Amino acid sequence: MEMDKLLKQGEVIDTLHLKDYRIIQKQSGFKFGIDAVLLSYFSQVNEGERHLDLGTGTGVIPILLQAQTAGEHFTGLEIQSDFAEMASRSVRLNQIQDQVDMVQGDIRQASQIFGKSSFEVVTSNPPYVGVGKGMVNVDSPKYIAKHEVLCNLDQLSMAASELLKPRGRFYLVHRPTRLGEIIRSLSKYQLEPKRLRCVQAYRDSNANLVLIEAVKGGRPEVTVESALVVYEQKQVYTEQMKRIYGIQNVPES
Amino acid sequence: MEMDKLLKQGEVIDTLHLKDYRIIQKQSGFKFGIDAVLLSYFSQVNEGERHLDLGTGTGVIPILLQAQTAGEHFTGLEIQSDFAEMASRSVRLNQIQDQVDMVQGDIRQASQIFGKSSFEVVTSNPPYVGVGKGMVNVDSPKYIAKHEVLCNLDQLSMAASELLKPRGRFYLVHRPTRLGEIIRSLSKYQLEPKRLRCVQAYRDSNANLVLIEAVKGGRPEVTVESALVVYEQKQVYTEQMKRIYGIQNVPES
Repeated sequence: MEMDKLLKQGEVIDTLHLKDYRIIQKQSGFKFGIDAVLLSYFSQVNEGERHLDLGTGTGVIPILLQAQTAGEHFTGLEIQSDFAEMASRSVRLNQIQDQVDMVQGDIRQASQIFGKSSFEVVTSNPPYVGVGKGMVNVDSPKYIAKHEVLCNLDQLSMAASELLKPRGRFYLVHRPTRLGEIIRSLSKYQLEPKRLRCVQAYRDSNANLVLIEAVKGGRPEVTVESALVVYEQKQVYTEQMKRIYGIQNVPES
Repeated sequence: MEMDKLLKQGEVIDTLHLKDYRIIQKQSGFKFGIDAVLLSYFSQVNEGERHLDLGTGTGVIPILLQAQTAGEHFTGLEIQSDFAEMASRSVRLNQIQDQVDMVQGDIRQASQIFGKSSFEVVTSNPPYVGVGKGMVNVDSPKYIAKHEVLCNLDQLSMAASELLKPRGRFYLVHRPTRLGEIIRSLSKYQLEPKRLRCVQAYRDSNANLVLIEAVKGGRPEVTVESALVVYEQKQVYTEQMKRIYGIQNVPES
């Protein structure tokens, strides 16, 4: 690969610990986090299935799912054009252009862009924070990635529901604080929660992330899986987290 | 106590491991389980507060809450008259008649019996299983305790909401499989989930119980607490479960 052509100023290449895949990120600014890695681990894309990630940012989720699953095709949709363009370069960096597309566009127009009932699987690691009435700097890319400026829960659920085929699966990572709102919003758009997993930093900590699988038109019945604990003790990952990160014994820096 | 007057044929007295309290149960038939003990542990009744338990069965929850909390008064409501009467005898057995009442009556008429906005705290360990359309023996006391024959989720949420004062707290134990339905039903009656705790048999098992605190008129924000793990290994309770059961080192038989 011609690295100098793929990397722009202010960008770095990080390793993904999976098939030697790498990803381009901005040196300062929004980087993908443990949430995206856990969502990819939690999501299932079966042979022949088509996947779309809503608000893909760096594109890490489609890239990880291409590496981890037997899915046929993976797409990332990102509204911020510099991120969408950077994510496309990460696809080329890993030479997976035949299976992965990054598209610039708005979640609220996603079903016009891709057509209704087009995917078996939709994922999203959306902004977690609702927007209050205070004055905010809504133009900051980092702010847009973390706050519901351009897409709120209902708009996300509606988009996912329209894009999914009947019985299609929507995988979401979010803050447990918003669990009530999330379940109500999913239900409003015929997405029934079927699988739920909470993520805790330590064995005795409150959950700080929740992973949800919802099925379009599913009947109400949830499997709550065992809590996923990240750290055995300070700076030491649990065995399970080491497996998820694809690392052996050394905790990531 | 005159034990022979308090105990009827086919009944036994079990120990509660709390203040030497005891409880009368039927030798065969529905007995209280770990769910009731965990719900009592999860529920908070503060000084001066009045509590009502909907569908109290043996009366174990009001009795445990009287032993564990600083609440002012505790009531159990039970539709099956033999259970309500037996629960009253357990109250006398522990000599806590001044603080605990057991009342025979229907959850669906509870707000007529006690009056609206009468309690700071309502608890319930309701039947877990929805009723299908098949033929069932609905007269069996055990069946009534486990299936939504006499009270479904919506009727329970409505009753709790009517009985609670504004900002009052509803504590519920249920099956995680029904989490979606539960949150929707609570919301329908202005009960907002605020605290949620999943219970797993082992560290790596799916949850088999969920404990929920909902606040009447609360704003949407849930704290998901660490998963409560029951067994360290087969027949060995975790330290936390030993504390909850009020036992030292010996697992219960």
